[in-house]
Amino acid sequence: MEVHTVLVNTGGFSAGEETHIRERALSLGAATHTTVDAVEEYYNKGIRYLIFGNILKNATYPLSVSSERVFQALAVLRHAQTVGATHVAHGSTGAGNDQVRFDLVFEVMAPGMEIIAPIRELALSRQEEIDYLAKNGCAPAWEKAKYSINQGLWGTSIGGAETLTSATSLPAAAYPSQPTATAPEKISITFRKGEPVELNGKPLPPVELIRQLNATAARFAIGRDTHVGDTIIGIKGRVAFEAPAPMIIIKSHHLLEKHTLTKGQLYWKDQLAGWYGQLMHEAQYLDPLARNIEAFLEDTQKFVTGTVETELMPYHFAVLGCSSPYDLMNAKFGAYGETNKSFTGADVTGFTKVLANPLKIYYSVHEND
Amino acid sequence: MEVHTVLVNTGGFSAGEETHIRERALSLGAATHTTVDAVEEYYNKGIRYLIFGNILKNATYPLSVSSERVFQALAVLRHAQTVGATHVAHGSTGAGNDQVRFDLVFEVMAPGMEIIAPIRELALSRQEEIDYLAKNGCAPAWEKAKYSINQGLWGTSIGGAETLTSATSLPAAAYPSQPTATAPEKISITFRKGEPVELNGKPLPPVELIRQLNATAARFAIGRDTHVGDTIIGIKGRVAFEAPAPMIIIKSHHLLEKHTLTKGQLYWKDQLAGWYGQLMHEAQYLDPLARNIEAFLEDTQKFVTGTVETELMPYHFAVLGCSSPYDLMNAKFGAYGETNKSFTGADVTGFTKVLANPLKIYYSVHEND
Amino acid sequence: MEVHTVLVNTGGFSAGEETHIRERALSLGAATHTTVDAVEEYYNKGIRYLIFGNILKNATYPLSVSSERVFQALAVLRHAQTVGATHVAHGSTGAGNDQVRFDLVFEVMAPGMEIIAPIRELALSRQEEIDYLAKNGCAPAWEKAKYSINQGLWGTSIGGAETLTSATSLPAAAYPSQPTATAPEKISITFRKGEPVELNGKPLPPVELIRQLNATAARFAIGRDTHVGDTIIGIKGRVAFEAPAPMIIIKSHHLLEKHTLTKGQLYWKDQLAGWYGQLMHEAQYLDPLARNIEAFLEDTQKFVTGTVETELMPYHFAVLGCSSPYDLMNAKFGAYGETNKSFTGADVTGFTKVLANPLKIYYSVHEND
Amino acid sequence: MEVHTVLVNTGGFSAGEETHIRERALSLGAATHTTVDAVEEYYNKGIRYLIFGNILKNATYPLSVSSERVFQALAVLRHAQTVGATHVAHGSTGAGNDQVRFDLVFEVMAPGMEIIAPIRELALSRQEEIDYLAKNGCAPAWEKAKYSINQGLWGTSIGGAETLTSATSLPAAAYPSQPTATAPEKISITFRKGEPVELNGKPLPPVELIRQLNATAARFAIGRDTHVGDTIIGIKGRVAFEAPAPMIIIKSHHLLEKHTLTKGQLYWKDQLAGWYGQLMHEAQYLDPLARNIEAFLEDTQKFVTGTVETELMPYHFAVLGCSSPYDLMNAKFGAYGETNKSFTGADVTGFTKVLANPLKIYYSVHEND
Repeated sequence: MEVHTVLVNTGGFSAGEETHIRERALSLGAATHTTVDAVEEYYNKGIRYLIFGNILKNATYPLSVSSERVFQALAVLRHAQTVGATHVAHGSTGAGNDQVRFDLVFEVMAPGMEIIAPIRELALSRQEEIDYLAKNGCAPAWEKAKYSINQGLWGTSIGGAETLTSATSLPAAAYPSQPTATAPEKISITFRKGEPVELNGKPLPPVELIRQLNATAARFAIGRDTHVGDTIIGIKGRVAFEAPAPMIIIKSHHLLEKHTLTKGQLYWKDQLAGWYGQLMHEAQYLDPLARNIEAFLEDTQKFVTGTVETELMPYHFAVLGCSSPYDLMNAKFGAYGETNKSFTGADVTGFTKVLANPLKIYYSVHEND
Repeated sequence: MEVHTVLVNTGGFSAGEETHIRERALSLGAATHTTVDAVEEYYNKGIRYLIFGNILKNATYPLSVSSERVFQALAVLRHAQTVGATHVAHGSTGAGNDQVRFDLVFEVMAPGMEIIAPIRELALSRQEEIDYLAKNGCAPAWEKAKYSINQGLWGTSIGGAETLTSATSLPAAAYPSQPTATAPEKISITFRKGEPVELNGKPLPPVELIRQLNATAARFAIGRDTHVGDTIIGIKGRVAFEAPAPMIIIKSHHLLEKHTLTKGQLYWKDQLAGWYGQLMHEAQYLDPLARNIEAFLEDTQKFVTGTVETELMPYHFAVLGCSSPYDLMNAKFGAYGETNKSFTGADVTGFTKVLANPLKIYYSVHEND
Repeated sequence: MEVHTVLVNTGGFSAGEETHIRERALSLGAATHTTVDAVEEYYNKGIRYLIFGNILKNATYPLSVSSERVFQALAVLRHAQTVGATHVAHGSTGAGNDQVRFDLVFEVMAPGMEIIAPIRELALSRQEEIDYLAKNGCAPAWEKAKYSINQGLWGTSIGGAETLTSATSLPAAAYPSQPTATAPEKISITFRKGEPVELNGKPLPPVELIRQLNATAARFAIGRDTHVGDTIIGIKGRVAFEAPAPMIIIKSHHLLEKHTLTKGQLYWKDQLAGWYGQLMHEAQYLDPLARNIEAFLEDTQKFVTGTVETELMPYHFAVLGCSSPYDLMNAKFGAYGETNKSFTGADVTGFTKVLANPLKIYYSVHEND
Repeated sequence: MEVHTVLVNTGGFSAGEETHIRERALSLGAATHTTVDAVEEYYNKGIRYLIFGNILKNATYPLSVSSERVFQALAVLRHAQTVGATHVAHGSTGAGNDQVRFDLVFEVMAPGMEIIAPIRELALSRQEEIDYLAKNGCAPAWEKAKYSINQGLWGTSIGGAETLTSATSLPAAAYPSQPTATAPEKISITFRKGEPVELNGKPLPPVELIRQLNATAARFAIGRDTHVGDTIIGIKGRVAFEAPAPMIIIKSHHLLEKHTLTKGQLYWKDQLAGWYGQLMHEAQYLDPLARNIEAFLEDTQKFVTGTVETELMPYHFAVLGCSSPYDLMNAKFGAYGETNKSFTGADVTGFTKVLANPLKIYYSVHEND
């Protein structure tokens, strides 16, 4: 078969790496090699909603890898159709989420396309892969291959060794960033309609803002953690990750929302965003439900506008406060626990009397139970 | 009126403080003063379920204060009925949650009892309270009164000054604990059916375990944050808190659950626990729904048994891993991303084909939309 | 005070009734009387979403009354502001939902406006009201006043007598319609993007369609039931209703959705629509969350287009089937239970093997429990 | 291979049918034939919770078939293990839910057991099955085979012909019951802790009560409808059903709950019961989550005790009312819309003022938006 290789960059490859991959592809006999820059699409159609939804899977993981896959698959498929390919191949094993994420997009959007997944079909182990490649003249620094690393705009995931067990975490050295900052540092992020648009008062396109924030926060080794969750194929999977900008942006955005949205909005955003994250994680991003949820999330962001202050420290950060023209914590109506201005103590007494009705009735009816 | 004072200790008062309060109460003319130790009841009927549910309001606040109130109100009411009181008084303002939490319990469980809330009724400001007390010979260190502090087994809340605005956080000095530890420290917590029962391998009653863990983690100044949320009376309220043991226990317990519960259990626990936290926060703990949710949560904890390792560092901690006889991340069936043992690559291909059906049909029907 | 009366017609008053009410108002001394036709606004901003959401409170009640109130209150308020009124009065008792629905809109949108609610303030009973009116020359057929009836485009509610107890239902004669049709009748409703736009193939504006359908189905006495639910003020409330068009439209629309939406869309529509109904029922329609939910619902309706057949019979109806260009029950992919075309039996075997993974692991780990 | 046949009766086979099936099995060469009566297990571990949860899939279908399968599969498996079988066979096609329901139970509970599903493996059509059987001497009334009928204690499902399209419903004659009653009939069902225990005042074991109620209501042809839903394998599936007792019991039980449970209990029961129904429908009954939900549901039923009156009419029924010692619609506290006894009009005014706070603040902050 004639082989055309394609690399979809969702924020994890430098120009140098792109060139290196191109050279290796061509030297291994690819007829053509193509690099697709999918970062903007990834932000606009994916990350944006992860921010709107403050999405952390199992209250932990910003979906650093899971959220890239569908955009990579769609870009690969568009390229395959451009070159008139009848087959599409990928390197997933038979034991992870990615095989399902890739295959499902191909299956749904191009039912006639044949899928080839050699590692899965031949049931190759990591060692067998390394041996095969070495035998075929492809022998980079294999000691690095202890971990399977995936880097993108929304974070880096690291799997292997310790993450294959339950008991231990990665050694510090296994993370891409090491702390170099020596003093705490305050930063501010400005959001407009829910999107991060200024860093320390400087307007930036969101993708660039995320890149710069990643660089700044990486000096503090912020955003490391280990996620364990349920995979699409039903086994438990564990992965370490480092995601400095995602963690800071999500926590800052969430704070701003607590000040600018109503209780009901906050509650339902949580429900829908959690499900949206799950759709993305479980290869269901193409479900029209995801578009409906995006419409909901977008509508909630109209007034999520303001600036959030955060302090960076080694390994962690603290969100300090915010200012917004739409802040609902408004002194005109009262100060929590101190003074009430738009209602009286008697109003609250009446309020509580009526609020008590259902339980008052319940305990009266049940007084002998 | 003859005044009987009662202090309900839910873990925030030392023996010395109890004595001091008793003396002051009697010196101010109370006919009797009673101290009720409600810590065990608070743990058994409240904190236990907060742990089972990993409850953090708005993904932040362990309900340190909110969760105490109902047990305090019930203890006060029992005492009031014992001494044959016709009225019950408390010091809440008209601008906070606590007035509703106290009044509602009295209203529901003793509809005939009259409630007196002088600060609310006279609409006294914090300064007017201080002046009144000073004039009446009660003049402790009022500079401390800048903040309204509430301490209990499940954390300390601190309101006032900075928390009355949106923009800034408390100065470090305003927190009860200051970091004194100089090196990271590893600890382990063992859970049995969801309850923390051993600290570093030493069996302890849960209440004692929480106390010791609070002391250990306070040396790292762990568990500080600021919560802003919707109050029962509809205004936004902001409060700082320090809750070392609650944050560590909840995160450790949650990790253990991710290893021992199914995906569906994790999802629904989140839904019900979030609501339970809201019931407790909003004075609705007496709703029989809360009992139903407790039955659910308790049933989920049967196999949440195992030991979790955590590393304490200044201002933060990392949950490292766990071991459990009920760990569902089990190498017998495969290793995530590496090897599949209980199913083949062909099985996954069939799986994905069938999983793709709904979207395949959808995009086929909609191919021209 | 100078009194200006206003009647807001949300579909329940005929021209004759409007005139009669105007005459009575002026004869009783109103300075002016104004009739506002709010039917289109009520449909566009309210009923439309009740249809999109298939909203039946407690699986029973189409919110016939609850959904009118906010539009009536807003229209009254606009009129009050036009005439420069400082006070606004309404006739609600202190024991129902409507007082809260009216007051809350005034309170929120015009905080300075004084509210007068004489029946509530004077705690008048139904009999005292009747006596007062009779004494003041207003003495219509009071035997009718046994029930409190509210009629509107989306149904008629009937409260009083039997509904004040739990045990019995209204006698048939108390309902506005009596069955006159003698043979079953088939009708068809065509929906476009979720809105009913054709009746029996004849294009009609939705409001007119609802009116005609109400007339047709009333001949079968369709859409009667009794609803018991939780009121805003915490007591249980019971009300009978007759809502022929709403019940038929909702069930027809729901059927069309089952054919044209994905499983996930159906699930989340239910969740959000149920909450939306509750917001409307509980006077919270003005919460921006309601706008967010509307954005979601609207987005789900893009392809809810097709025609639904229904058979009307005395007291009940059966939805027979539908046709839609977007029907996802599509023979190209297989026929349920009979033939599978887009996947093989072996695919399903693989599917089930992988689908079984979580429970297989669970029961293996727990084999001795 | 030596073949042992087993028939699991979940309420759909008469003694005569059991005998007939046994004879046919043995005549076809089965080494042994066994009939398992699983009705009590089916009720206790399945139907009971369907009643507690008022479970109607897509607001329509009482899960008549879906809920039987797991109990049949478990009984078959126990029998297979008793006779020492290495393989288990069933007659499902590759296009329905049942294959997954059966296989998954075997896969999970007996991973070593081989599954044989000839119709699926040979991809036989309905006509090919008929031909094969006829050729092998098994030729009953095949005109009946137009529909695939499944009968059990919780209803009868009917698939085929019309249900394979979207547009039309079954002809009346295709339903098992035809209306014979000539006058309406009132019945009463008494529930104790959520379970139906008396019919018209006569104590009956629940299984017997369901049988008698099915017989009574079948004379009115009550409980017919058509369900269309999402199958486990991702295609839409449509099925007609007749389920007289389930529909009446669920609607009666639900009414009783509206009177005896709090608003929060009703809301969360709906959420969890809907999910439980989905678990059962989608072959996930063995998930420990199902046990957790059962614990919740059981806990909610403590006071769901009382008697419900229903009127049966041709093709439909009306639930008239109920009486219960735990009825929360209690005249002592007020009569909805008429009189308030446990609170004053002024209390409601205060209540509404405080309830209005969030939106008052919102619209004040947003007055120029």
